Amino acid sequence: MRRVLVANRGEIALRIIRACHEAGVEAVAAYSDADKAARWVELADDSVHIGGSPAGKSYLNADAVLTAAWQSDVDAVHPGYGFLSENAAFARRVAEAGLTFIGPPADVIEKMGDKATARRMAEEAGVPVVPGSGPLNDLAAAEAAAAEVGFPLLVKAAAGGGGRGIRPVASAEELADVLPTAQAEAAAAFGDGTVYLERLLERARHIEVQVLADDHGGVVHAYERDCSVQRRRQKLFEEAPAPGLEREVREAIAEAAVRLARHVGYRGAGTVEFLLADDGSFYFIEMNTRIQVEHPVTECVTGLDLVAEQLRIADGKALSVTQEDIVLDGAAVELRLNAEDPDAGFRPAPGELTRFDLPGGPGVRVDTGFVAGDRISPFYDSMIAKLICWGATRGEALSRARQALAELRVEGVPTTASLHARLLPELAGGPVHTRWLEGWLG
Amino acid sequence: MRRVLVANRGEIALRIIRACHEAGVEAVAAYSDADKAARWVELADDSVHIGGSPAGKSYLNADAVLTAAWQSDVDAVHPGYGFLSENAAFARRVAEAGLTFIGPPADVIEKMGDKATARRMAEEAGVPVVPGSGPLNDLAAAEAAAAEVGFPLLVKAAAGGGGRGIRPVASAEELADVLPTAQAEAAAAFGDGTVYLERLLERARHIEVQVLADDHGGVVHAYERDCSVQRRRQKLFEEAPAPGLEREVREAIAEAAVRLARHVGYRGAGTVEFLLADDGSFYFIEMNTRIQVEHPVTECVTGLDLVAEQLRIADGKALSVTQEDIVLDGAAVELRLNAEDPDAGFRPAPGELTRFDLPGGPGVRVDTGFVAGDRISPFYDSMIAKLICWGATRGEALSRARQALAELRVEGVPTTASLHARLLPELAGGPVHTRWLEGWLG
Repeated sequence: MRRVLVANRGEIALRIIRACHEAGVEAVAAYSDADKAARWVELADDSVHIGGSPAGKSYLNADAVLTAAWQSDVDAVHPGYGFLSENAAFARRVAEAGLTFIGPPADVIEKMGDKATARRMAEEAGVPVVPGSGPLNDLAAAEAAAAEVGFPLLVKAAAGGGGRGIRPVASAEELADVLPTAQAEAAAAFGDGTVYLERLLERARHIEVQVLADDHGGVVHAYERDCSVQRRRQKLFEEAPAPGLEREVREAIAEAAVRLARHVGYRGAGTVEFLLADDGSFYFIEMNTRIQVEHPVTECVTGLDLVAEQLRIADGKALSVTQEDIVLDGAAVELRLNAEDPDAGFRPAPGELTRFDLPGGPGVRVDTGFVAGDRISPFYDSMIAKLICWGATRGEALSRARQALAELRVEGVPTTASLHARLLPELAGGPVHTRWLEGWLG
Repeated sequence: MRRVLVANRGEIALRIIRACHEAGVEAVAAYSDADKAARWVELADDSVHIGGSPAGKSYLNADAVLTAAWQSDVDAVHPGYGFLSENAAFARRVAEAGLTFIGPPADVIEKMGDKATARRMAEEAGVPVVPGSGPLNDLAAAEAAAAEVGFPLLVKAAAGGGGRGIRPVASAEELADVLPTAQAEAAAAFGDGTVYLERLLERARHIEVQVLADDHGGVVHAYERDCSVQRRRQKLFEEAPAPGLEREVREAIAEAAVRLARHVGYRGAGTVEFLLADDGSFYFIEMNTRIQVEHPVTECVTGLDLVAEQLRIADGKALSVTQEDIVLDGAAVELRLNAEDPDAGFRPAPGELTRFDLPGGPGVRVDTGFVAGDRISPFYDSMIAKLICWGATRGEALSRARQALAELRVEGVPTTASLHARLLPELAGGPVHTRWLEGWLG
């Protein structure tokens, strides 16, 4: 691998550029109108314009990205997260153009992208799944399935993802009301009205396992992250390892993830997501076939460079580590800093970053694509930085996060920093479930 | 410990404030005129003005600092490095005022501050010292001693320090010429013409061992740093662990440092400095009885928080770790970013930091006391930041340092960043000796 097209933006674009440079590989930034003067574009070895500011005209436009890859003489494409990263058709076209897609094979993306197939794969691999149904298209079938699954349950879009197209249902009566709406929404959002049912596990935690697989039979896990602090299914705070997990549960959940990765012929970095119930039982929910926003907490507690491993794997090399080399050390937390106003319903608040002084010192890592003077664009998601803090213990990591927030100075746009400052003392109490934050916010 | 006076400035002041906050202790910043609006003063819980901008009127003025301690109702004083940190009389006065000096007992500072006594302590502890003579006042005695010490050697002022009052001598003939000059210089500079001889170890490396000792008999080392990249005896680049060190040498040198710390009744964090010859033999040079500028590289490879340990120890608690807990993981390098012009003889270049964009991402730590818009004062040393990069291997740490330098953007003052960018590829070749940099600079 000689030269990589970075088909993404913001902090993950810079993260990929860093990994390329550290591996001695050139990085070409693909950028939209809005990102023309972005810091990560400047830090790339070369850059190529791919279209207008709305993502549909640039970062989500497979034709534009493929043309850019051709124009910029790269031999590989890194899709980052979001945008085209889990688009099997795009991955296929990259491969057909004779380029390396830095991610799993297109058919694996396809399999795991289809929720019903992914569920079947988990069952085949002996990985527990949340009690649920197959794909459904009418009420009669849904009612029959619901009786088996049990209430409360969720109606989910079969082609959905990213927390969208999901509706809770408390009873059989409610199902009749919700189903048509859910189908219509699924059809509108994903071009496919097929839905399925899934038991709603109350007070469950969101635990996800990082896996890495190469072309030489190497499949390892890098333990788990706890991402239970969510608002409207959007993660706000993540940590590794999951606090208070018993050793046997930790090992069992990690092994289940590896089993699934092996079963589907996985390659690259991926995340297997589970719900963990109070009694230690866990259930597969989905697999994300890409690098994850919250990957740094895993890097901090294992010493791995997950993006560097992605590059190695895509280049046909073996993983740099075996399972025995991956040892947990300390604890890490990640605070997502979004340009949103937590006091105004988390309304996105684009604008100019007039000041952006970052925290530092021991255990503090900042991943951002922005510098003071940059404009936060209204066209993309509102995350402007990730504050990642490591400590020898979870308490130390949380203390450092509090201090880092005190040092951070952002002016020009409101951010979620104020929310995190209020949240951290609460989280010191230990693990929470996925609905806790919404309740706490009131 | 409830409230600490931070009797220092810049990055180490902020480093201490961070450690205090993470330990739940209040931090009061003592500041000079020039530092009134400094970022670390703002981040402290309280602040107290101690005098004019020249350090002699503030940071070096023991009366002013003691008055500030009294005014600000603290129960402890952290001296940082430089300034009053190795001033035994100051440490004694702090203790006499009923306050805790965060450092070793005054008599230990005194003992290790006197070069001849420190050398004797090392000999008593069975720690090898550079072959040398006792104090000398005439040529006949010097010639007899030189025959035992061997050539080349150094004539050193007995009352000297800080790299001053040192003259190299290649042969017996040269000694007769150099001795009177050296004696006259010593008398002029230090008010005492007494000199001594020390074997000049050519191509030696500067290796220093971090030690920690508490009041409960706990004395541990946190392995070594290599600080051989020096210009005029000023360190520019440091790393941990020392590259290419054989396991037996590493253990032997670390054990020697612990032996010395035990022998002198050390308490707190300290550094034992050695010269390491090509054949693996090593010789004690001096002990620094304080936290060191380059302490972060040790933190990165051990996971320790050395300033937090200083606070624990001063508070009468036991170390948070035993020797077995301290395990080396990966490699770390530190690049000192000085506001100096490497193309103009490293002339200090104070001025306004008009831009100060910091690097980030995996393995990158920045310790600084400044933000964009700050003025770098001509009154103090020119270091404005330390760039510390960790990697699973030395190669990864160096690659990250190269990328971090590419990301760093400082405008308003010239810095040593340009020098580091040229230096890093050279250092990838492996260890260098203490005179290497000066030769390379030409």
